[in-house]
Amino acid sequence: MCALPTAAEGPLEGPLEGPLSEHQHESDSPALTWLDEDLLRGGVRQRRFDVLRAGRRVPGLLWTPAEGEGPRPLVLLGHGGSGSKRQDYVVGMARRLVHEHCISAAAIDGPVHGDRRAGPPAPPPLVLAEFAQLWANDGDAMTDTMVADWLATLDALQSLPDVGNGAVGWWGLSMGTITGLPLVAADARFGAAVLGLMGLTGPTRERIARDAPRVRCPVLFFVQWDDMMFPHDAAIRLWEAFGSSEKRLVANPGGHGDLPPDVLETSARFLAAHLVGDPTGAER
Amino acid sequence: MCALPTAAEGPLEGPLEGPLSEHQHESDSPALTWLDEDLLRGGVRQRRFDVLRAGRRVPGLLWTPAEGEGPRPLVLLGHGGSGSKRQDYVVGMARRLVHEHCISAAAIDGPVHGDRRAGPPAPPPLVLAEFAQLWANDGDAMTDTMVADWLATLDALQSLPDVGNGAVGWWGLSMGTITGLPLVAADARFGAAVLGLMGLTGPTRERIARDAPRVRCPVLFFVQWDDMMFPHDAAIRLWEAFGSSEKRLVANPGGHGDLPPDVLETSARFLAAHLVGDPTGAER
Repeated sequence: MCALPTAAEGPLEGPLEGPLSEHQHESDSPALTWLDEDLLRGGVRQRRFDVLRAGRRVPGLLWTPAEGEGPRPLVLLGHGGSGSKRQDYVVGMARRLVHEHCISAAAIDGPVHGDRRAGPPAPPPLVLAEFAQLWANDGDAMTDTMVADWLATLDALQSLPDVGNGAVGWWGLSMGTITGLPLVAADARFGAAVLGLMGLTGPTRERIARDAPRVRCPVLFFVQWDDMMFPHDAAIRLWEAFGSSEKRLVANPGGHGDLPPDVLETSARFLAAHLVGDPTGAER
Repeated sequence: MCALPTAAEGPLEGPLEGPLSEHQHESDSPALTWLDEDLLRGGVRQRRFDVLRAGRRVPGLLWTPAEGEGPRPLVLLGHGGSGSKRQDYVVGMARRLVHEHCISAAAIDGPVHGDRRAGPPAPPPLVLAEFAQLWANDGDAMTDTMVADWLATLDALQSLPDVGNGAVGWWGLSMGTITGLPLVAADARFGAAVLGLMGLTGPTRERIARDAPRVRCPVLFFVQWDDMMFPHDAAIRLWEAFGSSEKRLVANPGGHGDLPPDVLETSARFLAAHLVGDPTGAER
């Protein structure tokens, strides 16, 4: 159960643009609008929001305990290529963080993914191909946009009374590391990060190589030993490059998508140990 | 709390030799004698035993829950070079297994270590030097002797009513892997093993290379990235050689002795998940 002290509303940054549609209503944060999705299941509340930034809508989901005020820790979840903020493992990770550790969680759609796309849902291979093209042709700008979208989202969410400006963590593998690593490097609020299934390779490898030493918080880094997309030697070089004094590499056999089933629990325990000091999550 | 079903006494193998001294008394196992050490602290019972094998005494410690009958899982703990069965981390690991997971634990002294030595305690560097010499000059025979000593100990302990023939695990890093890996490879009773701080290197590297593919149980393998004694590339080659389909490499920065403080908890959770199916230790 969640029983954390209340706190004053945090500061807000970021522009407010775009009119509200009939399906939206205002929130406590001027940059954030709620859409008509507010679900409660097993003590976990799931809400659909848009954050308005630079004239665009950044579509997201927020998971919080059903009751109580912040500040409480917040973990940002970056999904992998061809997925979305509603991906099973994103929702599973969010619900686990809220339910087991009283940590709020949020996800936004990645570039060309999810509700950022117009029209009907596209087949995952097409989305992945479009992402690969964007990464190859305009990877640094794509990275900058995602970092800015995430920071605006973080600011807006921290201004909500039931989130507040508590400790912040990151969880994102594969594409969730491609854009998440530069985010964690860019903001000192991150107190822990789970990264992996990526290496010092790909179109933005120079950007990644510059940013990795700027990551200073504790890092848990997953490697799949038989990953054909991001070979383990490139992954190890990325892990070696992190500036964090506390960084752990966890390697398992298998390909890019063959992560063992305990990854979410291991990740949640790691994040809780660093963000909450939760004795059930602390690794002694 | 421990509440496991009782079971019949298990089989016993191994010779019985040597008279009992005035400080010893017989046990339920003819190969095992108890010495005058029977401590109870925080629900954990610690007893000093000798196992008689091939005319020699193998000195050991057994940790069990204070009450109840077996069978319960048993984890064998192999200490590192210059240590002993009474090393802080051995006792800490044993107490954690009993207290948190209701798993019994046992340790015996390594070659030329602990109570295997005559006379007053020797300085650790001297013990380490003698071990290194033995490893270099007679490493395969040393390995065979330790494997046989451990198997006789395992048989004797499993015949005790409050241990019983439940699931068996191994925990041993560095020297605890040099002799523990061949042990785990030699006996199908092992259901999980924690190994590490060692690589495909050293005087018995050919023996280790032969035995690693015979290890089939789930393995958790620790690597210290800046280990000067067992470089990480040799450690990775050893991990790659294990025959286990489930094997996890966990790498942390730092030298041979700089393991992070959560190693014991991580190890205990891993062992419990595989030996008990304990929901508090299970990694989902």
